[in-house]
Amino acid sequence: MPAGFETISGLAQATPSKIVFLVMDGLGGLPHPDTGRTELESAQAPVLHGLAARSSLGLSTPVAAGITPGSGPGHLALFGYDPAKYLIGRGVLEAVGIDFDLQPADVAARGNFCTLDAEGLISDRRAGRIDSAAAARLCQELDGFSLAGVQCLVRPVKEHRFILVLRGPGLSDALTEMDPQRLGAAPLPVAATRPEAEPAARVATAFVERARALLRDCRPANMVLLRGWSMYPRLPALAEVYRLRAGAIAIYPMYRGLAKLVGMEVLPAGETLDDQLGALERYWGQYNFFFLHYKKTDAAGEDGDFGAKVRAIEEADRRLPRLLALKPDVLVITGDHSTPATLAAHSWHPVPVLLHSRWCRPGDADGFNERACARGDLGRLPATDLMPLALAHALKLTKYGA
Amino acid sequence: MPAGFETISGLAQATPSKIVFLVMDGLGGLPHPDTGRTELESAQAPVLHGLAARSSLGLSTPVAAGITPGSGPGHLALFGYDPAKYLIGRGVLEAVGIDFDLQPADVAARGNFCTLDAEGLISDRRAGRIDSAAAARLCQELDGFSLAGVQCLVRPVKEHRFILVLRGPGLSDALTEMDPQRLGAAPLPVAATRPEAEPAARVATAFVERARALLRDCRPANMVLLRGWSMYPRLPALAEVYRLRAGAIAIYPMYRGLAKLVGMEVLPAGETLDDQLGALERYWGQYNFFFLHYKKTDAAGEDGDFGAKVRAIEEADRRLPRLLALKPDVLVITGDHSTPATLAAHSWHPVPVLLHSRWCRPGDADGFNERACARGDLGRLPATDLMPLALAHALKLTKYGA
Repeated sequence: MPAGFETISGLAQATPSKIVFLVMDGLGGLPHPDTGRTELESAQAPVLHGLAARSSLGLSTPVAAGITPGSGPGHLALFGYDPAKYLIGRGVLEAVGIDFDLQPADVAARGNFCTLDAEGLISDRRAGRIDSAAAARLCQELDGFSLAGVQCLVRPVKEHRFILVLRGPGLSDALTEMDPQRLGAAPLPVAATRPEAEPAARVATAFVERARALLRDCRPANMVLLRGWSMYPRLPALAEVYRLRAGAIAIYPMYRGLAKLVGMEVLPAGETLDDQLGALERYWGQYNFFFLHYKKTDAAGEDGDFGAKVRAIEEADRRLPRLLALKPDVLVITGDHSTPATLAAHSWHPVPVLLHSRWCRPGDADGFNERACARGDLGRLPATDLMPLALAHALKLTKYGA
Repeated sequence: MPAGFETISGLAQATPSKIVFLVMDGLGGLPHPDTGRTELESAQAPVLHGLAARSSLGLSTPVAAGITPGSGPGHLALFGYDPAKYLIGRGVLEAVGIDFDLQPADVAARGNFCTLDAEGLISDRRAGRIDSAAAARLCQELDGFSLAGVQCLVRPVKEHRFILVLRGPGLSDALTEMDPQRLGAAPLPVAATRPEAEPAARVATAFVERARALLRDCRPANMVLLRGWSMYPRLPALAEVYRLRAGAIAIYPMYRGLAKLVGMEVLPAGETLDDQLGALERYWGQYNFFFLHYKKTDAAGEDGDFGAKVRAIEEADRRLPRLLALKPDVLVITGDHSTPATLAAHSWHPVPVLLHSRWCRPGDADGFNERACARGDLGRLPATDLMPLALAHALKLTKYGA
């Protein structure tokens, strides 16, 4: 059994009871300086707040105390995967983030277009954040090179970002990064850190030299920086470790990609939360676990727009009755990390958790917010505990020991 | 990277933001039987109590549930070092505790003067706690022996306690303890537990036999017991694991020694809390982490003097505005363990923690005390989490994973 799942996978039973994880991305917040109230405390969200009084509440830690998680580790933890044990490289995450069909033997890198000065030193690590259309044209020029049976696939991501995927036999991702992470330095060479990565290093180096030649006269993007070399991680599937038939309803490619990595089936989600709820209704009979991803809370938090985050919570609250009408056996509402609008970034603060089920043990919460969750009956828990708790409340786990 | 610091050291950035740890030694307490209020609850400490309402609170566990820590493990945990992984031997701790300049190749032992009866059996393991002056004279007699190029340095500690330091090439601390830990038994021989400790065992045995001869006619101290053989621990420095430039402002030698062991620079602290705050002001620009050690709370607790511990808290509270005026980005106020005056000893009770920062998420505390901390937003946490939390609130940690 995969590391970390020995106990749970021995207890998990396939049953028809249904679990929904509504992941409100970046849900946790901080008090607004004028009001002393967080985003959740400021929101007119009667359904959420009413549900809190009949639910278990707690605060979850995605990775460890003080650690601010990226979206990858944040979601892996929610699905029960120890994010310190199961790492997803930057190249792979970008690739799944644009719905690229990454193969198990592929090696992916995150690429930046950058600007070199006349001495060949980096003067801008992001080539002035060139626009996406210009970058897409450059990617087309770079795409399609091959050497010694290895293809170099180049796809644009957004602005100065792209991915390079090496496809061929016998490749390894044990490669060094090109980005010196500071200005005034030359790009670093791509080198193998283990002997088996020599073939990949040779192809990558040839690709880089060709890119240098092709981009020589371009401004501001006259060079590339490659980093985050990585291969498709071998994550055990939810079906294997929990015996779940899991469907993902996510609008953004990165979250669809993450869901695919843990073996969920990615369902057509549409473009709005209403579309997503429609998908949930349509596929309700075919799965016993649903991951419903709601992005607006995080986007508003990242923008530093307190009011927009409050409104995003209120919008979800208005749609919540449609979800509740399906009567899931277990509904978990939480985030993959906090994104306080005052900080305008992901943060390390623990994340509010609501677990609703016939079998939960409610406290005396007056609403769904950080303060109520800090006093909640679930206490402070690692995010990796949420999946076992959801399975238990769905009566999917048998007794441990006699 | 050193064990336990892999994640954090990969994320830590050197930034100018400033962290202060005010360690009020033995801070946690128990209710007074007459009033039902703990020392913190009894103190007129308006600054601390007011700060609590605008801070994160919690209760920290230095080592593990039920474990009463000594000063060594208590402080190591505060600085983020797992006290079960990073052990400081008793000999080393006593040596740093008297400001002895221990060298990396030295082997240190904690010594007791003891009393043997006519049959050579131990009748008092502490030689009637002979006074410090008498013990110092005996130490002078024992000091300076050498054998096979190894010096035997003897220094008094307090009352019946002294240290023996073996200094020479090729020594090991894999030696057995002499103290049978009961009366009516003979002192045990010093033996090597690994072959490489044979040279040290021979020198130690010769030292012991010489001490037996020199002390034969002394009363009550007619023999020595050596234990806690240990060498300078290889603790990773704060600069290495957290990229901090750390200064320690501690009056008592043991705490200066502990700070030195984790790579802090030990600053002239003077003799009072006011002196210490003066040092903090003088050195404010030169460090981005300060360890400020306040001993009076523990000393009063150990004496079983409830009123004195309350007054010690009140004294610190009156000085606190001087510290707050420096506007540290993060201020942590806690203890290295609890020392309830009713128990008159270190205890296992979790320790009140206050973390103040622009980025903390306050609860609804009515003051800084054990009850408010038990309901605090930080919950119950291992003391080793405090350093990552402080770094995070000082915005010194980058994101984990993409």
